[in-house]
Amino acid sequence: MLLRGDYSRRLPVVQDDDLGVLVASFNRMQAGLAERQRLQAAFGTYVDPGLAARLLEQGDDVFIGERREVTVMFVDIRDFTPWAEANAAEDAVARLNALFEIVVPAVVEAGGHVNKFLGDGALAVFGAPNDLVSHADAAVRVAVRIQGLVTARFAGGLRVGIGINTGVVIAGTIGGGGKLEFTLIGDAVNVAARVEQMTKTTGDAILLTDRCVDGLAARPSGLIDRGSHVLKGKSTPVRVFGLDAATSR
Amino acid sequence: MLLRGDYSRRLPVVQDDDLGVLVASFNRMQAGLAERQRLQAAFGTYVDPGLAARLLEQGDDVFIGERREVTVMFVDIRDFTPWAEANAAEDAVARLNALFEIVVPAVVEAGGHVNKFLGDGALAVFGAPNDLVSHADAAVRVAVRIQGLVTARFAGGLRVGIGINTGVVIAGTIGGGGKLEFTLIGDAVNVAARVEQMTKTTGDAILLTDRCVDGLAARPSGLIDRGSHVLKGKSTPVRVFGLDAATSR
Repeated sequence: MLLRGDYSRRLPVVQDDDLGVLVASFNRMQAGLAERQRLQAAFGTYVDPGLAARLLEQGDDVFIGERREVTVMFVDIRDFTPWAEANAAEDAVARLNALFEIVVPAVVEAGGHVNKFLGDGALAVFGAPNDLVSHADAAVRVAVRIQGLVTARFAGGLRVGIGINTGVVIAGTIGGGGKLEFTLIGDAVNVAARVEQMTKTTGDAILLTDRCVDGLAARPSGLIDRGSHVLKGKSTPVRVFGLDAATSR
Repeated sequence: MLLRGDYSRRLPVVQDDDLGVLVASFNRMQAGLAERQRLQAAFGTYVDPGLAARLLEQGDDVFIGERREVTVMFVDIRDFTPWAEANAAEDAVARLNALFEIVVPAVVEAGGHVNKFLGDGALAVFGAPNDLVSHADAAVRVAVRIQGLVTARFAGGLRVGIGINTGVVIAGTIGGGGKLEFTLIGDAVNVAARVEQMTKTTGDAILLTDRCVDGLAARPSGLIDRGSHVLKGKSTPVRVFGLDAATSR
């Protein structure tokens, strides 16, 4: 029974002989193990399971930082702020979570990592903290899947914009004073965020940069050249491609 | 020390076999407790300790979302991306962490919450998840403190921009598929981010919105009116005030 993780059981404390000592220790340990279950539940929920596993393996070591080529994906809900302002807080959170119940499993099943939630959006990365072959292909496949699932689930009542870029980032554990997060640093992340914003003007649900398209092992059908754009704070224009999930395969 | 048990119960009859089972369970529990220690270390490190405590109290319950007036602070390193590109990944991460070793304790000691790290920046909130009286004052005090400590530590070798805004946000636990984060939703957050970006053009290390200044119980000396600005995607201009940490008290 204990093997199955029932840490609520306590043995009666008996006398102050050896067995009594053992039983009392047992009960204290049971309390400790019950807390472990709660910690595991909270830890597993609040941190990516894959990242948690890598952290537990490494013990106290943290990632000191490494350059990696990755594919970065931003997913955002269209027009969420006015919707949230007109609705109850609980409903706004429930709506976001209904979306993220689609986004997170789609990313994780494809070998990606949901790095953080940013208001009504999410930042996902493919290729960090763990290696992923064909990370650009994985990201594009996930974007198409998300758009399909969102359309099926919300029937136009909720629309997303997705921006995808490929490039070299610094991945590492960032923070201080007892608060650390696995974080990506680099322009490739900013470009993905800007390209996601650009979906509002191009009207595409999914926009890929040329760097992402170049990184694809298999180019999907349904790519539409949307030309080159100068992004805020960047000198070199970025060429972007719309992807229609309905025609893509 | 053991005699706190239920003496109405009979001493369990322990056979050799039973004792063997007990000992084996003990050993497994020992392993489980060692893992608890690692989990506690990682959990405490990866999640805000205050938030972790509130989560553990609530067990599996998550925050379903609530509207709160808060003060939001963005801290960002100036010109970090070119610096990071010219240096080793480990050095970039070490440099960020040297900053966050200043930022995080300053925020936490003032009753605030470091919500997330975003590349070379951090988002801190005062007034969520826990109540904080005079959250605007706390945020401004922390900003002045951070600027002073950064100047003392880096002597101009690293400069930060800080944007602060006060307003109502939806605070809640956002996510899905086993990945959840405490997140703020609302325009007040976006405005703080835009105002932080604006420090690059006004040349101030710290910029406060009028909403923040209005929320202050005590107005600091050293406030400089920088006029009203239309922020991207907003219809109403936002008036901002520079704050010189050297003259503020």
